Amino acid sequence: MDGVFPDFNFDRSAPADSPYEMPQLAKIGVLNISDRASAGIYEDAPGKACVALLREWLATPFESDYSVIPDERAEIEAGLRRMADEAGCCLVVTTGGTGPSPRDVTPEATAAVCDKLLPGFGEAMRAASLRHVPTAILSRQIAGIRGRTLIVNLPGRPRAIRENLEAVFPAIPYCIDLIGGPRLETNPAAIKAFRPS
Amino acid sequence: MDGVFPDFNFDRSAPADSPYEMPQLAKIGVLNISDRASAGIYEDAPGKACVALLREWLATPFESDYSVIPDERAEIEAGLRRMADEAGCCLVVTTGGTGPSPRDVTPEATAAVCDKLLPGFGEAMRAASLRHVPTAILSRQIAGIRGRTLIVNLPGRPRAIRENLEAVFPAIPYCIDLIGGPRLETNPAAIKAFRPS
Amino acid sequence: MDGVFPDFNFDRSAPADSPYEMPQLAKIGVLNISDRASAGIYEDAPGKACVALLREWLATPFESDYSVIPDERAEIEAGLRRMADEAGCCLVVTTGGTGPSPRDVTPEATAAVCDKLLPGFGEAMRAASLRHVPTAILSRQIAGIRGRTLIVNLPGRPRAIRENLEAVFPAIPYCIDLIGGPRLETNPAAIKAFRPS
Repeated sequence: MDGVFPDFNFDRSAPADSPYEMPQLAKIGVLNISDRASAGIYEDAPGKACVALLREWLATPFESDYSVIPDERAEIEAGLRRMADEAGCCLVVTTGGTGPSPRDVTPEATAAVCDKLLPGFGEAMRAASLRHVPTAILSRQIAGIRGRTLIVNLPGRPRAIRENLEAVFPAIPYCIDLIGGPRLETNPAAIKAFRPS
Repeated sequence: MDGVFPDFNFDRSAPADSPYEMPQLAKIGVLNISDRASAGIYEDAPGKACVALLREWLATPFESDYSVIPDERAEIEAGLRRMADEAGCCLVVTTGGTGPSPRDVTPEATAAVCDKLLPGFGEAMRAASLRHVPTAILSRQIAGIRGRTLIVNLPGRPRAIRENLEAVFPAIPYCIDLIGGPRLETNPAAIKAFRPS
Repeated sequence: MDGVFPDFNFDRSAPADSPYEMPQLAKIGVLNISDRASAGIYEDAPGKACVALLREWLATPFESDYSVIPDERAEIEAGLRRMADEAGCCLVVTTGGTGPSPRDVTPEATAAVCDKLLPGFGEAMRAASLRHVPTAILSRQIAGIRGRTLIVNLPGRPRAIRENLEAVFPAIPYCIDLIGGPRLETNPAAIKAFRPS
């Protein structure tokens, strides 16, 4: 069989500690950004809501990388860099820190670590929220690409998280294809991914 | 009564020239940006339209800080800084200078003085105008935060000013709450402010 | 007649090789950005689709400046500069290179050569595409002004090009008026330009 699927066999026969071992489980990062949740004052409900949604929507098995940090720009940037570069997440979602308050710095931290921004994500998420509340325009959330990782900012309220992620999720698996990540399949009864033919 | 409402009494008993005198009247800046209005060739109709709208919509009494200046980036930046930092306006609306013409530099001046931008304002205002005229996409208006001041660019035509401000005004009192400004109440028969509960 | 329409007569009587010779034919640049089309692997269908649409929609005669280049940021910037500054195009449309893939750098190159960005174009084009495909949010296309030239990024698929250009074209002739370009008239049966009165 050697040489028939050379890359595949090469990867499978790599030692367990090799970076070439494949097929790897897809990894998704969930970065909760909240002074109060990181201090243990609040429960990290937004992050748990994200993981629950991803488990409901994705048919492809994945491992989640989960972290709760305060609204500090340097810590947010370090968290995003670690999840993208070291953990190898194909997708990182953040929750919280997207408003106009002085402590809200998630979009600035995200922009600082991204190679490319995707303005359509913020536009579509705000348009979706705007159907529910006029204060949707106060959310400054963005999305962007760092290497092979798509980073998407989500709001901090669990109900708003679903409304926002629902608005953009159908485009996420194809986006991850385009940046060289793993192929993600959705549970079509829950949400349908779209890939242009 | 001393000590019952200590902060309130302290503020009220401050001398008239003290910066601590409270309750202060809310201040709103209206910055007309127009070469022709500042030269006296045109009447400053856009600025007057803004003040009339704010008087119609706000139940909270406020003082307006009003200025007419030419389309010069340095003068616009200085005007915005003065209204935010010296006059202490919680809200500054600008009119004019948002198009693609060489003299239109209001968005650049606004971005230069803001700590944070709020892309949802421009998106919502353009979407509202787009229901009336396809040239709404030519308006480059933005909004942002400088310290405790929300700055919102509006177009220069009085009819467009109403359409635009109407699209974002319900979110403005809550935004001002979040950045530490005075609580603004609206006349609910005219327009309804929204505050998430 | 001398002195009655001095500028007009001056221009008409200028020698044939003078830069003042008028009336000049409007010039429109079409810049195809595609590694595969520039290598001859694909036909440059997107660029041809643009020229066909412009011929269908514009009543004003125009000359097209046509180029096919790879997804290299420096080459895109040079192509845009040449079409704007040397060829004197009033409008340049680009096709391709607007997605999230590592080779997609058209928006970055466009932003680098523009004096002003017009965020309403990208918003309106993505909103139009979003009615057809949820992956419209992956398009990072922008528009901006360089001197007297309006530059508009379009996607790479011919069907998407029509959907996108249709969404913004009614505002393009007035935009070109505002930046000092030639007056463009459309074929009203095909598409209607809008100029505020």
